[in-house]
Amino acid sequence: MNGVANRAENGFGLDHLPYGVFSVDGGPRRVGVRRGDEVLDLATATSRPELAATSLNPLMERGPSTWRQLREQVLDLAPDLPGIPLADVVMHLPFEVADYVDFYASEHHATNLGRMFRPDSEPLLPNWKHLPVGYHGRAGTVVPSGTPVVRPSGLRPVGPGEPPSFGPTRRLDIEAELGFVVGAPSAIGTRVPAAALADHVFGVVGLNDWSARDVQAYEYVPLGPFLGKSFATTISCWVTPLAALDAAWCDLPGQDPEPAAYLEPGRTRGLDIDVEVELNGEVVSRPTYSSTYWSPAQMLAHLTVNGASVRTGDLFASGTISGPEHGQEGSFIELWKGERFLEDGDEVVLRYSAPSTSGGRLSLGEVSGRIEAAR
Amino acid sequence: MNGVANRAENGFGLDHLPYGVFSVDGGPRRVGVRRGDEVLDLATATSRPELAATSLNPLMERGPSTWRQLREQVLDLAPDLPGIPLADVVMHLPFEVADYVDFYASEHHATNLGRMFRPDSEPLLPNWKHLPVGYHGRAGTVVPSGTPVVRPSGLRPVGPGEPPSFGPTRRLDIEAELGFVVGAPSAIGTRVPAAALADHVFGVVGLNDWSARDVQAYEYVPLGPFLGKSFATTISCWVTPLAALDAAWCDLPGQDPEPAAYLEPGRTRGLDIDVEVELNGEVVSRPTYSSTYWSPAQMLAHLTVNGASVRTGDLFASGTISGPEHGQEGSFIELWKGERFLEDGDEVVLRYSAPSTSGGRLSLGEVSGRIEAAR
Repeated sequence: MNGVANRAENGFGLDHLPYGVFSVDGGPRRVGVRRGDEVLDLATATSRPELAATSLNPLMERGPSTWRQLREQVLDLAPDLPGIPLADVVMHLPFEVADYVDFYASEHHATNLGRMFRPDSEPLLPNWKHLPVGYHGRAGTVVPSGTPVVRPSGLRPVGPGEPPSFGPTRRLDIEAELGFVVGAPSAIGTRVPAAALADHVFGVVGLNDWSARDVQAYEYVPLGPFLGKSFATTISCWVTPLAALDAAWCDLPGQDPEPAAYLEPGRTRGLDIDVEVELNGEVVSRPTYSSTYWSPAQMLAHLTVNGASVRTGDLFASGTISGPEHGQEGSFIELWKGERFLEDGDEVVLRYSAPSTSGGRLSLGEVSGRIEAAR
Repeated sequence: MNGVANRAENGFGLDHLPYGVFSVDGGPRRVGVRRGDEVLDLATATSRPELAATSLNPLMERGPSTWRQLREQVLDLAPDLPGIPLADVVMHLPFEVADYVDFYASEHHATNLGRMFRPDSEPLLPNWKHLPVGYHGRAGTVVPSGTPVVRPSGLRPVGPGEPPSFGPTRRLDIEAELGFVVGAPSAIGTRVPAAALADHVFGVVGLNDWSARDVQAYEYVPLGPFLGKSFATTISCWVTPLAALDAAWCDLPGQDPEPAAYLEPGRTRGLDIDVEVELNGEVVSRPTYSSTYWSPAQMLAHLTVNGASVRTGDLFASGTISGPEHGQEGSFIELWKGERFLEDGDEVVLRYSAPSTSGGRLSLGEVSGRIEAAR
């Protein structure tokens, strides 16, 4: 291992090796892999044409047999390759986002939010336990970790029967989520069965679906969230390949009633990923992805059951990860009951960790953003 | 004019000249322009690098001064260029779709649908006249005119308190719409004012937002339509440049109450475009885009007021165009009150016409699709 164990690994050891896109000194974007606090230049280290690219899309498009071969090769090469310190590189959006779909797969989150948005009715709507509710978000405003977030403006509700007022959101919030990145595409008119998750999903990113709750509350009937979400969605700069998460699969809490056959009721394996929500340097919440209701495989099967194709670069996310306990909420509106939201200058960092195949823990790439004043 | 007036123009004369992407005999895709029932090979006829492409995106990205120069050049060249008969080419998706947003801008449609989907409440929700309601659709399933549409399956409602049933949609419908194609991008964190429509929008396409009404009705609360729409959206193969529609602008019916300042209450110019909905060769409805409530410029201003960027290839659509009279409905659920929907083998063609700068009328590209049985 040539002393690699002596390097500061911080969850980015040889059991992890996530992919990203970096540049040095304003040079071209290159595909790299992370080892500890260094980046390895993969295009230089291998002669693979799919890595001579400015995004991960050409690699992702190749499909699982290429992904496996590359991982073998990277595992061989990584201990000895010269690294570039992270401090010397600029990280970029790791892939070109095709379609972005956000689900709503945590029962605790859906219940908490239902109580707040629809106080006079049952918190979970009748369809919620029969299908993974989801919607399309804006792909063009998915930004890499570290990108500042400008406070958005929009129409905010005033009171029943009153016209709305326009201005900067007063209820700027986060949603701590996990994102699944599609590599291998499917054909329009066909379905991707839940069992085929690993044939299509290349890897996983951390994701913060920034939300303007007042804008969202005013606009969302009947066609769903729009401007309350579309101003920015931040993802980690590192994509953790599914293979690095082999030891992280766990059984989810269970589903009652049993969902339709296309959702493969038995296929409720989730990922035992813990999240830390850090506000201005202090951990304020610890959501647990293992407590989610709908599994990643079920979300993918649902997304395509109508014959919708998936493309290389599609991103589908879990929705806010909220655990059952206070202190495990994935959004501030849940954590602080609507009494406190983000202020200008606030910085949020989401950190994710998972059991590793080496017996330790690996860290997904962090997801950070600082709020700038409305323009 | 070298006898061009003798050619069958069919709304595609020298006052129109829409752009598209074609191939011949399985060869590479090329950018072309339509003159009558022929395609002119633009990349060959000009030396512009932005036309040596397999989609319109490089041209669209250049912005309005390039668009104007090219149109001048095409107006000069078109009368004398040799044409390829349309019957000898295959047409393709004209541009790579970035984000697809669908609005809900017709008051008649929103009222008709509100009555059916929410029979116990006011048909127009309180926010409807304060903002152009819209949502993100699936960009990856936008297909060119002529693509068959496979009947989608999904969960359909059975009755209150009953679990849904899974199967092919029984309520397959159309939505006759107009699509606006963004060429020049904007930066994240900034707004595009309504007055800047022509600085960003390259042109217009016909659009059919196929809809599975039963799937939509079951899934759409609280996050909006998803699988009921995401299986296919058909656009015309020809993009009509905004310049060809100079004579088509008209005043819309008016807005009460006056919307917020960012929606520029005075800026309610729409397009006097008439639509024909043809089912199996028979015209069954004639929607009028001049009767819409929210203007294209207002939709663009709304879309970006929260700082969301637009990208080259973004597509935003009007929502179903329904006029005030019976016989002007833009969907079958409105036209036939939910008593009849599409059957396998049915073919729908949407045709659009507009006043032309020459004093005649031009035709937008047709939007056609035939329903195939569920798989």
